[in-house]
Order: sequence, then structure tokens, then C-alpha cells
Amino acid sequence: MPNQRFDVLGLGNAIVDVIAPVDDDFLAKAQLRKGAMQLVDEAQALALYDAMGATMIVSGGSAANTIAGLASFGAKGAFVGKVRADEAGNAFAHDIKAAGVHFSTAPALDGPATARCLVLVTPDGQRTMNTFLGACQNLTIEDIDADMVASSQILYLEGYLWDPPAAKKAFVEAARIAHGAGRQVALTLSDVFCVDRHQQEFLRLIRDGIVDILFANESELHALYQTSDFNAAVDALRQDKILAAITRSEKGAVVVKGLETYEVGAAPIENLVDTTGAGDLFAAGFLTAYTRAQPLERCARLGALAASEIIQHFGARPEVELARLAEQSDYLRAF
Amino acid sequence: MPNQRFDVLGLGNAIVDVIAPVDDDFLAKAQLRKGAMQLVDEAQALALYDAMGATMIVSGGSAANTIAGLASFGAKGAFVGKVRADEAGNAFAHDIKAAGVHFSTAPALDGPATARCLVLVTPDGQRTMNTFLGACQNLTIEDIDADMVASSQILYLEGYLWDPPAAKKAFVEAARIAHGAGRQVALTLSDVFCVDRHQQEFLRLIRDGIVDILFANESELHALYQTSDFNAAVDALRQDKILAAITRSEKGAVVVKGLETYEVGAAPIENLVDTTGAGDLFAAGFLTAYTRAQPLERCARLGALAASEIIQHFGARPEVELARLAEQSDYLRAF
Repeated sequence: MPNQRFDVLGLGNAIVDVIAPVDDDFLAKAQLRKGAMQLVDEAQALALYDAMGATMIVSGGSAANTIAGLASFGAKGAFVGKVRADEAGNAFAHDIKAAGVHFSTAPALDGPATARCLVLVTPDGQRTMNTFLGACQNLTIEDIDADMVASSQILYLEGYLWDPPAAKKAFVEAARIAHGAGRQVALTLSDVFCVDRHQQEFLRLIRDGIVDILFANESELHALYQTSDFNAAVDALRQDKILAAITRSEKGAVVVKGLETYEVGAAPIENLVDTTGAGDLFAAGFLTAYTRAQPLERCARLGALAASEIIQHFGARPEVELARLAEQSDYLRAF
Repeated sequence: MPNQRFDVLGLGNAIVDVIAPVDDDFLAKAQLRKGAMQLVDEAQALALYDAMGATMIVSGGSAANTIAGLASFGAKGAFVGKVRADEAGNAFAHDIKAAGVHFSTAPALDGPATARCLVLVTPDGQRTMNTFLGACQNLTIEDIDADMVASSQILYLEGYLWDPPAAKKAFVEAARIAHGAGRQVALTLSDVFCVDRHQQEFLRLIRDGIVDILFANESELHALYQTSDFNAAVDALRQDKILAAITRSEKGAVVVKGLETYEVGAAPIENLVDTTGAGDLFAAGFLTAYTRAQPLERCARLGALAASEIIQHFGARPEVELARLAEQSDYLRAF
């Protein structure tokens, strides 16, 4: 096994979030499904942007958020994702590097613009996402540095990578390299409609042993196993013999490993602002503790703590140093 | 007098704010004066950006913030300012129009990029600003639509316009048109170092009657009259026979008109996050009430209320509808 350079290497769509508060009427008029991520083309993205209010622009991307969160905890993270060399792409690269993450994927010099996600946040804190994939469609196997994959304890993949066809191949190849080097592979299911689009293939990844650790929220898990019963879904996870961390919003999280189950309550919050990134940051906290070989219950608690920070402000990158937050947290004490 | 189309027309530098939290050490190492705005060239801006953490990008610009705030109160505002037709310029145009402001200044098709202000926010909520003026240097008299100036009840000018030489001429010409149409002209002094750069000329604008209403904070007022004594500065204002609204941070605001003085306390806040835009939004509230011919004490209170909203989050554009905030405010009741 090569020397370990990174705790976690994330592979995902490199996206800039364009965020605006909207009311429920706005979603109804634009015929958008609240809480979901839908893919849009450039024309749809422009039309929606025109209709949105003044925005705040911050770096996003599901796996990228996770790795930035992990770095904020003091873990060593690297990220692979494709931007174009435009203003948004430069901002993405700046922000992820400024977060302390290793990022060296070459930007596309032409082709579609850096990906945007138009995030509409309703007063209840729910986010409805509309993603123009742009340059993410140009992520290919060529962008995978085999040495980097082999020298990372965990390879973390987002389900959204299954949307751009070339990225899907890069995903599978990266997982192959990781396992070849004796590493573990984690997958986040990303979004319930993403699971709907790729349900059979995601199940195959789990059952073929391409994925060792699964992150999902409750609805994504239900979509994966095509059930509306949480206990049935958990039983299915046990049968598939995968380590799974399932987030349940204000109900906290459940970790399933073989016959073992660990449940933790949500970390307390004062003010729900924007749920964008809750799952991404849960994974950040979980993997930080996991790569430090801490007990699974503590992994889940560190995840829940990171999620509680992110949902109290706009954007999906932490605004405080998570390592310090963890030191000071009553919620973590004794775990 | 032509029909009134706008309550206030703002003329200012069109700037995109790039915001990151920093600690005091960062300011010390970069040799920056806390709380001040300094002009930087493109190379300095890039070097500082490289050193900054992950950023949040929102539209800014002093007068633009004021007009956006005014629109949030339900007043009719227009803005004139120069961007380039690049991603940041498009975002600026989108955001100010999305705020309900009339904006039709033609973007520059070449030349320097849209202006950026790198805003460093320390844990005490103070902001230290580093502005690359870029495309703002191309605002000229040609950009002034005389009909628009003549049909606005108040022309609002920012002192920062004195920095790019061509904009200064546009400023004076716009004031001439406004007075020719029987309108009033307001000036904000912008920043203490901006006053240092242009002190004699700003005094001249006041004493020559080019400006009817003055907005300043305490230190800007002290710099203007070259005194460290607040009462002496207020006496000087009275001698110069100008209506002045002076903000004093947590001490509230003072309005001086001839021999009359009105003092109001600061509106209460829960959590100071980022003082960027406090003065801009004070002017927004003040002018909203002023153009509705409300008493000066209420003008100052509406200003203080708007300032209290803006300093409780990052960025200098309101995150809530200020008209609704005003309706619900205990601080405004009975005024």
C-alpha cells in the first residue's frame, strides 16, 4: 500500500451555488419540486436566474462541500472535479484551496461554463436546486490521478456523478484503483431523484462490492430499496452487508453495520436558515472521525454537529472552524 | 419640473463584494488599516484574494446598496454605475434589477474588469475594504441620462466617485442637471480616508451649494472639518447651512438642520456579524422617509432600522423586505 497522503479524496461535480431566498409561490409558479435537485440546461438556468432575486454566490458541489468540511475539522482532503477556466471556475478553485483542500484538476479551457446550481431557499429553510452541469460534463478518466487515489484512505464519490456520462466511467475507474490499493470506497446517494434515475446501477455498485460505505438520507434510502418503510430499508442494508450512515433530518442519524445499529439525535440548533449541505457536512464529520478510527456513534455525532452548523446560514461551506466547534461542543462531550 | 419617475437616483461605483472572515493577525500581516477602504490595483487585488479564505460573492457598491435598500422599503429607485460585460458585471446588473431598481447603464465591452471590493470581516464585525475600481473608471458624463436625473426627486452621490477622475465630472454634471430641474442633491462622504483624499473639494461642494443633504459617520465628519470634537463639527455643519445626518455606530444618529438637532438611539440588534453597508442602509431608510415628507426624527429612525438589519449578516444588501421589517418594528412605533 502506498504511503497515505490524504484521509479522503472526493470525486464530484465542481459547482458554484447561486442562492436566493424565494417564497413558496415562486416554486409553484416555476413548477419546481421543493427540496429536490433537478438538472436544467443553460437556457433554463438563465430563465430561472432572471426570475430569481438578488443572489449570493458561494462554492458548492456535494462532494466538494464534504471535503471542505473535512478540512475544516483538520483532516487531510483532496478533491477532483472539473471547472472551466472562467470567473466562476476560478472562484471555485480559490475557495476549495483556501479551505485547505488539495485541488489540482486541470480546468477546461473551452466548452460549457463552470457548473451552477441555482438554489432557491424557502422560509422553512428547504432548498430547491436547479443544476446546470456545464463543465462537469468534461470530467473524464484522464482527470483521475491513480497515485492520488491509491494514497487516500477513503475515496468518496457522489451519486450525482452518475448524471454526466463520462464522469460515471471516471467514478468506476477510481473505485477500481482504490480497491486495488487496499482502500475503502464511500458513496453518497445525493438526492432522491438522482436515486430514481440510477436506482438499479446504485444497487449494483453496493452488491458488487464497489462501494464499502453508504451515505443517504431517509428518502434516498427508501428510493434505493423501493420501500416506504424505514425498518424494511434498514433490513435490506443489513442483507447487502454495507456500512451505512442514514440521516433523518431533525430525527438525527442511524448507523447500520451488520447486526449493529447506532442511533444519535440531531445536534441542537438555534435558527434554521438553509438546509443546503446538511448531508454533505454530515459525511464530512462522519468521515473525519471514521478515518481516525473512532467509534461509529462518535462518527455519527461529529457528522450531526457539522450538519447543525451548515443549516444555520446560507451556503454549504462552514463559516466557522469545525475543529474548534467540536472542541467546544456539549453535544459531543462523553462521545 | 418634469414628472417624477424616481424617488432617488443613485450615482456610484458599481462593485461586487468578495467577502471572507479573517482574524486580526491577517490584517496585521497584510498591513491593512482596520475599518478603512483602500484602493488597490489589479495585482494587489489578486495577491490579497489568493491570501483570503473561501469567499461569498454579493453585489455591493455604496450608493447601489442604498438604492437597493430604498427599493426594499418600497420606494422607487434608479442607479447609474459602470460594470464591464463579464460574469461579475452580469451578476451586479441582475442583482440590482432583481432588487427592483431601475438600472440601464451600458456595460463596458472591453477595458478593465468589473470592480471588486475584497471585504475582510474580523470577529468584531468590522470590515476592512480593498477596492479594485476596474470598469468604474469608465463611468463618464455620457452615462448620465439628463431626463432621468431631472425626473428624480433626489440625486444621491457617493464620495467614492471622487476617486475615478471621469466619474467626478459625471458627478458634478449630474448635480447641475438635478438643480436645474429643481431637485435636491445628497452626498455621502463614504469613508474617512476618502474624505482625507478629497477634503477641500468636498467642503467646496457643500459651501458652493452643490450638495443639499449630507450623510457621514462621525469620523468622516471629523475629517471633513478637521476636528476631533463632535460638537465643533456640528457647529461647522450649522454654519454651512446643510441638512446633515450623522451616524455614530452604537450611539445612533444625529440629524442637524439649521438650529434644530434630532438624536435617535441605535435600533437594537441581537448579533453583530458584519458592519459593511451600515451607513449605506442608514441613508436608504432616511431617504425613504424623507422623500415621503416624514419628520426628520422618523427619517433617522428608519435609517437606523435598516442599518440594524444589514449588520446582522454578511453583505450589504438586505436579506429581508425592509418595508415589512418597518411595519413590525417596535423601534419605529410612535415615530
